[in-house]
Amino acid sequence: LEMMSKIVQFKEVGKKIVCVGRNYREHAAELNNPVPSKPMLFLKPTSAYISEGETIKIPKGCSDLNHEVELGIVIGTTARDVPQADAMNYVGGYALGLDMTARDWQAEAKSKGHPWSVAKGFDTSCPISKFIEKEKIPNPNNLDIWLKVNGEMRQSGNTKDMIFPIEHLISFASQCFTLEPGDLLLTGTPSGVSKLNSGDVIQAGLADIIQIQFSVK
Amino acid sequence: LEMMSKIVQFKEVGKKIVCVGRNYREHAAELNNPVPSKPMLFLKPTSAYISEGETIKIPKGCSDLNHEVELGIVIGTTARDVPQADAMNYVGGYALGLDMTARDWQAEAKSKGHPWSVAKGFDTSCPISKFIEKEKIPNPNNLDIWLKVNGEMRQSGNTKDMIFPIEHLISFASQCFTLEPGDLLLTGTPSGVSKLNSGDVIQAGLADIIQIQFSVK
Ligand SMILES: [Mg+2]
Ligand SMILES: [Mg+2]
Ligand SMILES: [Mg+2]
Repeated sequence: LEMMSKIVQFKEVGKKIVCVGRNYREHAAELNNPVPSKPMLFLKPTSAYISEGETIKIPKGCSDLNHEVELGIVIGTTARDVPQADAMNYVGGYALGLDMTARDWQAEAKSKGHPWSVAKGFDTSCPISKFIEKEKIPNPNNLDIWLKVNGEMRQSGNTKDMIFPIEHLISFASQCFTLEPGDLLLTGTPSGVSKLNSGDVIQAGLADIIQIQFSVK
Repeated sequence: LEMMSKIVQFKEVGKKIVCVGRNYREHAAELNNPVPSKPMLFLKPTSAYISEGETIKIPKGCSDLNHEVELGIVIGTTARDVPQADAMNYVGGYALGLDMTARDWQAEAKSKGHPWSVAKGFDTSCPISKFIEKEKIPNPNNLDIWLKVNGEMRQSGNTKDMIFPIEHLISFASQCFTLEPGDLLLTGTPSGVSKLNSGDVIQAGLADIIQIQFSVK
């Protein structure tokens, strides 16, 4: 019970955000990236979190801020080297998040072989919903996920199109880093990412489970 | 006082580890990297921390684990967009740390334009000393820093040879990410990095202030 009330506050108690890149074939293709043979992981700091009512800020010097809507897994129990068959036991709940990306900075980092951390981890780069109870999502591998900008549909996918499903991602990530209660795993974005401008309003949703709204300053 | 006792426990309460790459000219040169025009930042998760008495584990599949001895800054006060002139006010204390690096994985990531997170953030990749009180280091920009493997000197530098001194690093990092109390900033390594093998014993020191020892499993 104490752990449960703790992970509901994952934005405050969580220590890391592990993100998966290129986990939907059509999104890999739209950015001219090869489909990966294993999950590609990167980190955002928890200082990147914002909740509804807070505003996404275009970081100074960024000229191509992109939205990426993603299903988030909130870790419930410490996970290290867990097999895929047990992976779902480590899920504490879910959240709907945006992996905001300074695409111009990321492109420069990629071309120079530099780390992605600033392009992916700037303040307000992780707008996130409230905690979603695990029981509300019996099967996370078959959920419609969508994002609109100013009322226009930009991303419309389903988690069944993930290259690596949830069990695989948790198992793989737990072999790279010990996952701790309250940590978040963002599972990649479907195609349709696009540039945002100041004043844009983003709405996103996960099946009939949750909707979120954020505006861009 | 409450904040002070909190940051002494930075390994437990800190949320992120911000690392600086290529901050010593001779180290940039030894890896054939250009000298950067601004600090190059990346993240390690706090799950990477180990303390003396714990063992560095060569991650499965890594064939070139390297040591990088670094001065760590423990953030004392929330820092966002702070000017260099005020930067030292946000320092809560110091630590001596090792930025353990899977050099083979990092080289592959660099060549493909992939993130560095796994090459830099695996479990045990941040061996760290106990907290060092701020008062013990009147000038962090002039400290001998060294590392021996099995009693043989491998790295011997001084923080005065940093390309970007502490004030610059704190100011710059605080423009990229909000720095929070207990966060650690690792400030880069002098030249002399080398490959480690199972059974090696690492000793490292900072002036006459602290020494640490870790063995490799
Ligand atoms: Mg973190
Ligand atoms: Mg993404
Ligand atoms: Mg380093």
